[in-house]
Amino acid sequence: MSYATPFETFGIWAVVAVAVSALGYAIILVFQVLRQDSGTSEMQEIASAIRTGAQAYLRRQFRAILVLIAILTIVLYLTAALAGAEWHISVGRAAAFLMGSLFSATVGYVGMSMAVAANVRVASASRRSVTEALRIAYRAGTITGMLTDGLGLLGGTLIFIIYGKTAPEVLLGFGFGGTLLALFMRVGGGIYTKSADVGADLVGKIELGIPEDDPRNAAAIADLVGDNVGDCAGMAADVFESYEVTMVSAMILGLALQPFDLKWIIFPLLVRGIGVVSSILGTYAVTVWPTKDAFKAMDWSYDLSSLLSTISFAFLAHFYVGDWRVFWSTFAGILLAIGFNKYTAYFTHTDHAPVQQIARSTRTGAATTILSGLGIGFESTVWAILIIVIAILASVLIFAGSGVSYVLYSVALCGIGMLSHTGNNVSMDAFGPIADNANGIGEMSGMEAEARSVMATLDAVGNTTKAITKGIAIASAVIASVSLFGSFITNINVARSELGLSSSGHLSGINIADPIVFVGMLVGGAVPFLFSSLSIRAVERGATAIADEVRRQFSNAGLVRGEVKPDYERAVVICTTAAQKELVGMGLLAVLTPVVVGLLLGAESLGAFLGGVILVGQLLAVFMANAGGAWDNAKKVIEEGKYGGLHSPAHQASVVGDTVGDPLKDTAGPALNPMIKVINLVSVIIAPLVVRISTQTDQLWIGYTLGAAGLVVLGIVVWRSKREN
Amino acid sequence: MSYATPFETFGIWAVVAVAVSALGYAIILVFQVLRQDSGTSEMQEIASAIRTGAQAYLRRQFRAILVLIAILTIVLYLTAALAGAEWHISVGRAAAFLMGSLFSATVGYVGMSMAVAANVRVASASRRSVTEALRIAYRAGTITGMLTDGLGLLGGTLIFIIYGKTAPEVLLGFGFGGTLLALFMRVGGGIYTKSADVGADLVGKIELGIPEDDPRNAAAIADLVGDNVGDCAGMAADVFESYEVTMVSAMILGLALQPFDLKWIIFPLLVRGIGVVSSILGTYAVTVWPTKDAFKAMDWSYDLSSLLSTISFAFLAHFYVGDWRVFWSTFAGILLAIGFNKYTAYFTHTDHAPVQQIARSTRTGAATTILSGLGIGFESTVWAILIIVIAILASVLIFAGSGVSYVLYSVALCGIGMLSHTGNNVSMDAFGPIADNANGIGEMSGMEAEARSVMATLDAVGNTTKAITKGIAIASAVIASVSLFGSFITNINVARSELGLSSSGHLSGINIADPIVFVGMLVGGAVPFLFSSLSIRAVERGATAIADEVRRQFSNAGLVRGEVKPDYERAVVICTTAAQKELVGMGLLAVLTPVVVGLLLGAESLGAFLGGVILVGQLLAVFMANAGGAWDNAKKVIEEGKYGGLHSPAHQASVVGDTVGDPLKDTAGPALNPMIKVINLVSVIIAPLVVRISTQTDQLWIGYTLGAAGLVVLGIVVWRSKREN
Repeated sequence: MSYATPFETFGIWAVVAVAVSALGYAIILVFQVLRQDSGTSEMQEIASAIRTGAQAYLRRQFRAILVLIAILTIVLYLTAALAGAEWHISVGRAAAFLMGSLFSATVGYVGMSMAVAANVRVASASRRSVTEALRIAYRAGTITGMLTDGLGLLGGTLIFIIYGKTAPEVLLGFGFGGTLLALFMRVGGGIYTKSADVGADLVGKIELGIPEDDPRNAAAIADLVGDNVGDCAGMAADVFESYEVTMVSAMILGLALQPFDLKWIIFPLLVRGIGVVSSILGTYAVTVWPTKDAFKAMDWSYDLSSLLSTISFAFLAHFYVGDWRVFWSTFAGILLAIGFNKYTAYFTHTDHAPVQQIARSTRTGAATTILSGLGIGFESTVWAILIIVIAILASVLIFAGSGVSYVLYSVALCGIGMLSHTGNNVSMDAFGPIADNANGIGEMSGMEAEARSVMATLDAVGNTTKAITKGIAIASAVIASVSLFGSFITNINVARSELGLSSSGHLSGINIADPIVFVGMLVGGAVPFLFSSLSIRAVERGATAIADEVRRQFSNAGLVRGEVKPDYERAVVICTTAAQKELVGMGLLAVLTPVVVGLLLGAESLGAFLGGVILVGQLLAVFMANAGGAWDNAKKVIEEGKYGGLHSPAHQASVVGDTVGDPLKDTAGPALNPMIKVINLVSVIIAPLVVRISTQTDQLWIGYTLGAAGLVVLGIVVWRSKREN
Repeated sequence: MSYATPFETFGIWAVVAVAVSALGYAIILVFQVLRQDSGTSEMQEIASAIRTGAQAYLRRQFRAILVLIAILTIVLYLTAALAGAEWHISVGRAAAFLMGSLFSATVGYVGMSMAVAANVRVASASRRSVTEALRIAYRAGTITGMLTDGLGLLGGTLIFIIYGKTAPEVLLGFGFGGTLLALFMRVGGGIYTKSADVGADLVGKIELGIPEDDPRNAAAIADLVGDNVGDCAGMAADVFESYEVTMVSAMILGLALQPFDLKWIIFPLLVRGIGVVSSILGTYAVTVWPTKDAFKAMDWSYDLSSLLSTISFAFLAHFYVGDWRVFWSTFAGILLAIGFNKYTAYFTHTDHAPVQQIARSTRTGAATTILSGLGIGFESTVWAILIIVIAILASVLIFAGSGVSYVLYSVALCGIGMLSHTGNNVSMDAFGPIADNANGIGEMSGMEAEARSVMATLDAVGNTTKAITKGIAIASAVIASVSLFGSFITNINVARSELGLSSSGHLSGINIADPIVFVGMLVGGAVPFLFSSLSIRAVERGATAIADEVRRQFSNAGLVRGEVKPDYERAVVICTTAAQKELVGMGLLAVLTPVVVGLLLGAESLGAFLGGVILVGQLLAVFMANAGGAWDNAKKVIEEGKYGGLHSPAHQASVVGDTVGDPLKDTAGPALNPMIKVINLVSVIIAPLVVRISTQTDQLWIGYTLGAAGLVVLGIVVWRSKREN
């Protein structure tokens, strides 16, 4: 910090102040939401069951991973200490890891708590007016958005203030903690929510033809709990992690650029600070716009935030950095976010050709419905890649001729720009499951049809915003990964020169023309498939267990007539167990695979492994998110009356499509985003150690032994998961 | 050839003699098959309709691509001439391209012609005995197998005899021609066969519940034609191409190794020659074994061939090359083939856990059937990658310490070993569709149940052998591609040094840590998804058209009662049109994408693009082949009586799974294998030109203009294909 100009010192503390203000704003919103009327006692009873189930689940999840987090804290200390770092850096990395996990968990937990408090209030407000229901749901979502912004910005800035030039080593810990927690929340929450949802539908919608959230369905409460632990807690932690990792990579690359000129690192912090202010103003404006269309209001707010930010970024680039290129890179990120929004809407919105096409193919049955969804999902990956490719190429061209370090920094700035309005995104996204839950409470407590139609409208808007947030999150994974590649190579070269190995030695990149390196890439490509396979099958197992339970309870005639209440608790327990079972195993999979590849095949293969994970992870995640979203909305098209409408054969086919899409879009797909980043950060963190072990012939046996041990653990994880089938 | 020892000269001519003998053996078998009794006049009438349809289709297909082939012949001449090659090499490359296409087309056409001649003879023989039916079907398959071996070996060896040290430049043309034709045969045949099959099933099996091949189904003949143009002609051309490309890559790398010692190039030729002899003996033995189990007889024959070859390879390595390492690399290939056989059988055979699991999930309906198939298909890719990775690592370790050229040669030898018993594989594979067709003729001509059960047994065996051949083909694509990477880098470095650019310049590999290179990899990964999306949707469109036609004809009450014959011809025309529509576009996609990437992003990005194509292509191809195969056999499990058997809800769910799997396993998946290789060979061929254009600043505009033009053409191709939806 000693090199900072007075303006820079002021700027950094201003960023801290903005972060704290965001948290303060969140607290104000909490009181505003809680002050609202919380409905009839019947509604409150259902809401309380949801709340209890959701909180019990998250607590159990946190307990389940506690030991792993404790072990990893020590391991993180060792990764720095063994690589020769000073003690305060090693301790800092471990502490930052803890802080990152804690922040991620907090965002998820608080976000979910607000959702389960808001749902019943939205249900109650929907009896009065759309505007009021919208305001409460959106404000509850904004709380999570502000937490995401505030904690992400605060953590990163504080680490920079404390550690200065040595911050990168510590920031890696912060990023890893947040990402790992997000992975657990996404996997656990995703398996929970879709086991309940698919299981409830298999018996309710498909076998018995009763509506969703029918109070006689034993899985009804579990389904509503699932929306909160998956779509709220899981999503919030995941977006927090994306926000944090893009910042970490920009700071690392900025610090590496010009050690004695702080503007390259302070610029991204200021950009993020401005983004938070723009988000506060934008989200505040949502209820002010002269429109009754909820989506339009949120869209306008997003545009307002983007406009405010863009102007401020330009001022900052001109007057502070004195280099317009940083503006263009950040602006490319803003455009990338907008481009991805439009792209996702095209592939998943009911108005456009892809969903219409799937809807049309329901006429010839379930098989063609699935086939056209697969075809469209496959195609959508191509356009996603092209949009990302254009953004990367633009970032490269903006800094063309300045060398690869600047180019990577430029890509990182693109990520900074892209996620600068995370506050808006989270608010828009969290809003959907809250409306959905409110609707469920309405259905279960037998609320009047007009109020429920208000909530259904809000829910439909939420489906689109949800798809958009997922798209942004996965695109940010690729952008962050490309920039982190730079840190990976830097780390390796630094380690090599510290060991006295010529830095002009055989590693100055990742050469996939070398068969051993190519093998790393092949293995990397297989990981997302393995991961998705495990999560899809976990959902299938969970859903089958739920379906059996619902069917068993329905064999009671009193339940069918509505005289006896079902035992909701049992379904909640089944989902909790299903989600917990895979949790630690899948976490180990993400953490251990890069370690094993690095130790057995070397640092360069590890880099190619990373490339394979990013490439295939991105493709699969987009495919699953879009195919799932499109099937979901194709069903909506049929339900609105096309091709025979509700209960027609076309509708049955569309329900099959939707059910297949559910675990793809809400479990397997979203989990790939944090998985990519966990693997990425683990690779960057262990790179120096891998170089150390693999280049000293007398230590080779250590690497191979550890690698083989890791392989055995991975084998056990996969075997256990398969055995349960 | 002037450096060859007398033994080597003798050896090469012996290989030519073996190749010619294989062709001679094929001719003998043709007469043996044609001599058989060709059934009743009713059977002959149906067989003649199938033959007419199949041959008309292939002829139309050849006509459709004639112009493209002519243009490419000139382009191939130019790729060599513009890069500064002597005239006889440029002409040789163009001529070899024509020869490669012609050979590939011949193998496909003759293979199919034999299949349509054999089907009715097998049907007739099945009335007498299993053994006789098996013998005819297998012999007809062996004709194709021998053609594959004979033409592949002959072409490669002749080019080597004529061109000697400069053969690589010409061999590339030979490989490209064979691969491109195979791509067309796979795409066209695949779309044809599955449009007919899925379309016939949509109405016949799903809507009306009538059996497959019911003579009242207007698509019945088209379905049988499809088996021939897809599973026979397409498969034969594809396997020929795999056989040829693994040989081309081994020869190129062998020649590069030690220009003055021919043993590195003569060894793979001798190995292939021995493989053909072993295949002749092995396939001949099939009808000799003391077993009535067709699969066991073929399996034993395969083992016999493997044993004969392994012993001979060892002798050759010891006495001729004097280096046991070449034996071990080739042996690794034989083991890889065996490993892949067992692996595919595990994931797709009715006896094992994966298929059993899918069968179990049919109890909860179509959605869980699809989900468990997706989960298992995803998982299967992981094991496929691991098997390939182990083979590559073994090849690398065998030549460890000898430098990267030897390592790549070792990988190429692994490919040589892997496909040395292509003769057996093709015989086993072609046998399936012949039995299937015979069964169809039996059904349509109302043959007695016993004879039909004989053919059904043979058909079921064919399903497994078909899956095995697909697995081998795709694994060979990865192995060949890894070794061709070496040629790619060599070509680039040679071009650079010819241009006076320092060969220690910035390209000594493909460094994916560079963002522009990474972008190439991202684009490469998208191509297999685009390709699969186009083919799946082409099938869906074709199948819907067929379903509409069958439904329309069924509205005639006389047809339902069996008094009126359906108009089979219309369905044949619909399938032909559906298949033709996509043909040229998808060919252009494979040929142009590497050109565009190379010209716009440079040679290194092109290398990464190739890596992305191989990685994702392999994963998708294996996923689609295995998921499809597993769904197919899960249906068989239900039909054998489990979970309610035929016409139960579980059976309906399994039919949905099978229908979804059909275009995945028989159209999109198999087409990826030649696609990977077309892209690979195009990249190697254009590499010198790309270097030339992109490193001379005054010619940069040429590259960008051509690249942009290519992009426009690609845009039009995709747009046209989407518009037809």
